[in-house]
Amino acid sequence: MKQIKGGVTAAKGFEAAGTAAAIKYQNRDDMALIYSKTPCVTAGVFTSNVVKAAPVLWDKEVVTKGDPVHAVVINAGIANACTGKPGFDICRQESETAAKALSIPDSSVLVASTGVIGMQLPMDRVAIGIEKLATLKNDSLENGTTAAKAIMTTDTIHKEAAVTFEVDGKTVTIGGMSKGSGMIHPNMCTMLCFVTTDLAISKELLQKALSENVVDTFNMISVDGDTSTNDTLMLLANGEAGNTPITAEDENYEKFKEALNFVNTTIAKMMAGDGEGATALFETKVIHAKTKEDARILSKSVICSSLTKAAIFGHDANWGRILCALGYSGVEFDPEKIELFLESKAGKIAIYKDGMATDYSEEEATKILSEPAVTALVDMKMGDAEATAWGCDLTYDYVKINADYRS
Amino acid sequence: MKQIKGGVTAAKGFEAAGTAAAIKYQNRDDMALIYSKTPCVTAGVFTSNVVKAAPVLWDKEVVTKGDPVHAVVINAGIANACTGKPGFDICRQESETAAKALSIPDSSVLVASTGVIGMQLPMDRVAIGIEKLATLKNDSLENGTTAAKAIMTTDTIHKEAAVTFEVDGKTVTIGGMSKGSGMIHPNMCTMLCFVTTDLAISKELLQKALSENVVDTFNMISVDGDTSTNDTLMLLANGEAGNTPITAEDENYEKFKEALNFVNTTIAKMMAGDGEGATALFETKVIHAKTKEDARILSKSVICSSLTKAAIFGHDANWGRILCALGYSGVEFDPEKIELFLESKAGKIAIYKDGMATDYSEEEATKILSEPAVTALVDMKMGDAEATAWGCDLTYDYVKINADYRS
Repeated sequence: MKQIKGGVTAAKGFEAAGTAAAIKYQNRDDMALIYSKTPCVTAGVFTSNVVKAAPVLWDKEVVTKGDPVHAVVINAGIANACTGKPGFDICRQESETAAKALSIPDSSVLVASTGVIGMQLPMDRVAIGIEKLATLKNDSLENGTTAAKAIMTTDTIHKEAAVTFEVDGKTVTIGGMSKGSGMIHPNMCTMLCFVTTDLAISKELLQKALSENVVDTFNMISVDGDTSTNDTLMLLANGEAGNTPITAEDENYEKFKEALNFVNTTIAKMMAGDGEGATALFETKVIHAKTKEDARILSKSVICSSLTKAAIFGHDANWGRILCALGYSGVEFDPEKIELFLESKAGKIAIYKDGMATDYSEEEATKILSEPAVTALVDMKMGDAEATAWGCDLTYDYVKINADYRS
Repeated sequence: MKQIKGGVTAAKGFEAAGTAAAIKYQNRDDMALIYSKTPCVTAGVFTSNVVKAAPVLWDKEVVTKGDPVHAVVINAGIANACTGKPGFDICRQESETAAKALSIPDSSVLVASTGVIGMQLPMDRVAIGIEKLATLKNDSLENGTTAAKAIMTTDTIHKEAAVTFEVDGKTVTIGGMSKGSGMIHPNMCTMLCFVTTDLAISKELLQKALSENVVDTFNMISVDGDTSTNDTLMLLANGEAGNTPITAEDENYEKFKEALNFVNTTIAKMMAGDGEGATALFETKVIHAKTKEDARILSKSVICSSLTKAAIFGHDANWGRILCALGYSGVEFDPEKIELFLESKAGKIAIYKDGMATDYSEEEATKILSEPAVTALVDMKMGDAEATAWGCDLTYDYVKINADYRS
């Protein structure tokens, strides 16, 4: 497996484009297209929120039906959530408009939206945007990046990752892009994320690999504890790598899972580190837990703690808050037995042991916490399971961004 | 039932005091005492956090044993949590020192601490503080208030409430004080809260009334989703009202429960409204839910949403975030059927109906949200159950307070 440059256009046969449709933002791209001439098998995971945005309902129908997919149309600015039947009709119109512009079947277009909840999409401007995207699309890495930038809302960096690996002597590529900065607390998947691959694989195994992988990637990040109405993760496979299609959980399937995990982990961490207003990626790794599920719950509890996140922002080694967050996670353990370390590029120190603070240096701790990526390492001393969760610090800018998001 | 002035000294036979012991804060009171010459039956609910502070472990032992209680010694500044065996020894020493100073049995003293986690209490200064408290104590309302102020940490107002009611022609009083501003997300009870009453009642019914009541009072508030290691709620009854002791769930027990509910609700709301950095009390009332538990989960999900809390700070009627928080609460419902209203002293408007925004005025909504107490009213249209939860807005000051709490 080798990491390469690029995103959704890295894999063979995938094209992309971004354009400005003035849906809500002015003077920037706000619509994107992913296109594959070759039909794709598609896997998806969607928000667990009872309040599902119209595009989520549309895509679930398309993915469940299982017809081949050729295109995804995405917009930023308006989420098309809490928009009732009119909102769902817009999805149908988007799909029909794209199908006509791209000369592909009606049922082969997925749609996705992100932005303010409750507003209706202006279909006239969306239609013009789709026409433009259809003419602009190509398979360059640059166009992949343009698409990744067009779907940003409060994101400060665009998010892409890609890898190649070998199957039967054929080079297979997986590439993805995502947006996500606020309302991030995925509970089936995450904000908008699109992963493309030229691997030939059955729809069943594609979905299985994706569903299993999100548990340890996108479901392990949180920015603010809010599970969005629009969370969508799509994986499109067009088979252009030319490998013998994967139809069993064999060695090639394992290779694919490993590569997918790399792309998804990379993108998930980028989202956590680019959390709204964040100045630091905050990782919590729990080792020697009794069960994998315990390790997940414990690590996620720490990165979700508002108090811990604020302390990270202040570069303050207020480790009591980490202990506190482990303690209310719901997992049973003996606080006298566990050990806590803080770690970053600047070093690693043991900070808590035998039920009390160690004799650590506050100065050294602050130095460690002043890096742009910091880790709390928790040794539960109970078993062999481990898990990692990723979040960010809680800052003035998070409040600023969300106190007047709509204005 | 009649609301009266006062706190822990409102009920007959209860004395209190506050003093400065320089435990961590300088130039302010940081220790408090509650004392009753007449022995008290005591009920308590304590944090559900696995990481329990030493005073919590001490008090659980005392309350479980059931010996009569005469005094509670409280300090602010250092939480005596994550302090191992030395921390528990401090509790024993505090209890012994107070017992000697007050000429009461060793096992009749409860202790409570609040503040930074992980530091050891300076027992020399604590002992001097206890001696002073023993000489300063009296039954004036002023001393009750002094005690309520001494236990504050990041609180901006002290919190007291009291009521009287009649039992068998005797006037019974319940009064309480609490501190709590951050790390508030009680899950068995709340931060430090002490309620005293001169009611004569059996220990069993005292505990039952308290345990049942917290579910709809202290367990329905949240400031930041963090359940403290020190959460403690104590209810002391010394029987000095002279009523025939309550030993059955009769009419008098119901009267007591009503009065207790008033005191606890009042204090709980004061804590939510005084959340760290808060500018507004944010209440969410869910009506016509299928079950009481559903109503509790739904209302609490909304007041816990960081995004909604930030929107309240910005006086922004970003109702989509409320819908979103209801949707990820875990309760099943049909988003097309529910209705949402915003309400405050400035008015009430319907904002969401039939799966979409109503034709409301943004200007009016902002006016409503600019009050110091605002309510989101959610009509689930599914049944007859209702519940209310209380939180606060998320502000720059919350981040400021918690980014450098220890410095």
